[in-house]
Amino acid sequence: MRAIQNFAQLTDHLKQLNRRRRIAVVCANDPNTEYAIARALEEGIAEFLMIGDSAILEKYPTLRRYPDYVHAIHIENPDEAARKAVEIVRQGEADILMKGIINTDNLLHAILDKEKGLLPKGRILTHLAVMEIPTYHKLLFFSDAAVIPRPTLQQRIEMIWYAIHTCRQFGILQPRIALIHCTEKVSAKFPHSLDYVNIVELAEAGEFGDVIIDGPLDVRTACEQASGDIKGIVSPINGQADVLIFPNIESGNAFYKSVSLFAKADMAGLLQGPVCPVVLPSRSDSGLSKYYSMAMACLTVKDSLY
Amino acid sequence: MRAIQNFAQLTDHLKQLNRRRRIAVVCANDPNTEYAIARALEEGIAEFLMIGDSAILEKYPTLRRYPDYVHAIHIENPDEAARKAVEIVRQGEADILMKGIINTDNLLHAILDKEKGLLPKGRILTHLAVMEIPTYHKLLFFSDAAVIPRPTLQQRIEMIWYAIHTCRQFGILQPRIALIHCTEKVSAKFPHSLDYVNIVELAEAGEFGDVIIDGPLDVRTACEQASGDIKGIVSPINGQADVLIFPNIESGNAFYKSVSLFAKADMAGLLQGPVCPVVLPSRSDSGLSKYYSMAMACLTVKDSLY
Repeated sequence: MRAIQNFAQLTDHLKQLNRRRRIAVVCANDPNTEYAIARALEEGIAEFLMIGDSAILEKYPTLRRYPDYVHAIHIENPDEAARKAVEIVRQGEADILMKGIINTDNLLHAILDKEKGLLPKGRILTHLAVMEIPTYHKLLFFSDAAVIPRPTLQQRIEMIWYAIHTCRQFGILQPRIALIHCTEKVSAKFPHSLDYVNIVELAEAGEFGDVIIDGPLDVRTACEQASGDIKGIVSPINGQADVLIFPNIESGNAFYKSVSLFAKADMAGLLQGPVCPVVLPSRSDSGLSKYYSMAMACLTVKDSLY
Repeated sequence: MRAIQNFAQLTDHLKQLNRRRRIAVVCANDPNTEYAIARALEEGIAEFLMIGDSAILEKYPTLRRYPDYVHAIHIENPDEAARKAVEIVRQGEADILMKGIINTDNLLHAILDKEKGLLPKGRILTHLAVMEIPTYHKLLFFSDAAVIPRPTLQQRIEMIWYAIHTCRQFGILQPRIALIHCTEKVSAKFPHSLDYVNIVELAEAGEFGDVIIDGPLDVRTACEQASGDIKGIVSPINGQADVLIFPNIESGNAFYKSVSLFAKADMAGLLQGPVCPVVLPSRSDSGLSKYYSMAMACLTVKDSLY
């Protein structure tokens, strides 16, 4: 498999697999989610179980064009719908869970339930996203713009592992992972920069397998060779980062929101940690972004849940 | 004066003023600084006192084209050059201080000297930058991507005041200032979001004069009306921010580095707090960015130092 370098290649790859993954969608009831579902149906990459107000099938006639691949369970209460969707995943009846217009906290509550949820004990819940930026030459993964405010060293190591697994599923054999900071200097004033030293040492000792990890680096030095050259920074990343690990949620989110808006980047993102891929889009994500997130989920489905 | 909406308008405005501001440059010795100086000479907006190794005048012949407007003081030791430049500003012989290739810490040391420096007692030192983003319809100011790691409430209030003063000098009569966070929710988990509530109350009480301040907002909601509409966020900023105040240096820096790289934005920036504008570019800033920073400094020179 060649590395997938943009979302068109992701879609092409999934179409060639010719396999529909089963997606349970909780409370789909907005045009962007409908766009994403209709496109996934048309591309032949997924089938759907709609859990919530089944009136959606009346509202969006396009969804009725594929009666074999769209089924509905009518549950009006959003909390109950979330619990039902989680139960269906646990029973092996769905490969992927996706949020519609239900409040994120309500769905997370069902996912995080200790008895009946989807997060194995001790597993860290975080968010991994990927952007196709018109001015960058390949996909750029980043974490965490949405879940963990200030990752500990252990949480950061898990974030890196999730990113490595996902990169491999995208065919990126030796991912280049940049640990982001506002400068290349390590300083006790910024505790995450000390964690970075630990992580780079672990990577150099082979702990993460065949990857390149370096930091602290700023976003420019991570993604543009000339910036490093001017500053005299010698980094094995060499301006070719596949993954940016951000110091905190504020910086990850500022990156995501500003690059999507000002550089017209498309985005996909998934929760990491649960037994199955979970698509948890923001309300303001476009239909295309919701579709690409589904596609990312279809690519990263594991063969068995546990 | 109409609001200046891009760097071309800034240059035009300065040319019309037909007044050369006096810039003391410490250790200029790189092609990007030389470009910026040569362009400012040509545009007629500045004259220069070069403090450092005067061999620069041999190295860059363009600088000798304007013998009336370029003078040199030969001092080889960078620390001494920095002290001399600060002294010259204090004596009223220069309006603006600019860093060449001297280490930032060395120049800051001279600026922050309690007896002979440029920062009045009790004044807060911070950084204000402004970007021209091809996909945004006006200039976008932001603070602080470079100096204060985690601003206190008092520091943040000062940052806002500096931004307001600068906006007025750019002809922006009622600046719209967005207090940036990763969500629109206020939460004790993020102490800066509680500070934002205080600041918005102060603004509503008229404390900052004729400005619009709102937050927490994310970057998209601050700069794109559609994002707010989809999320049902009603903000007086209305996707029309002039200024973004970032929660911490990591997020400000991630914004600056990623928008300049991926959205091809041009940037200018100045230290805020010292008695005169201080241009303190990064080594990796382009010649154009150094020139625009000089232009921003020329616009914001005060008539008297103290």
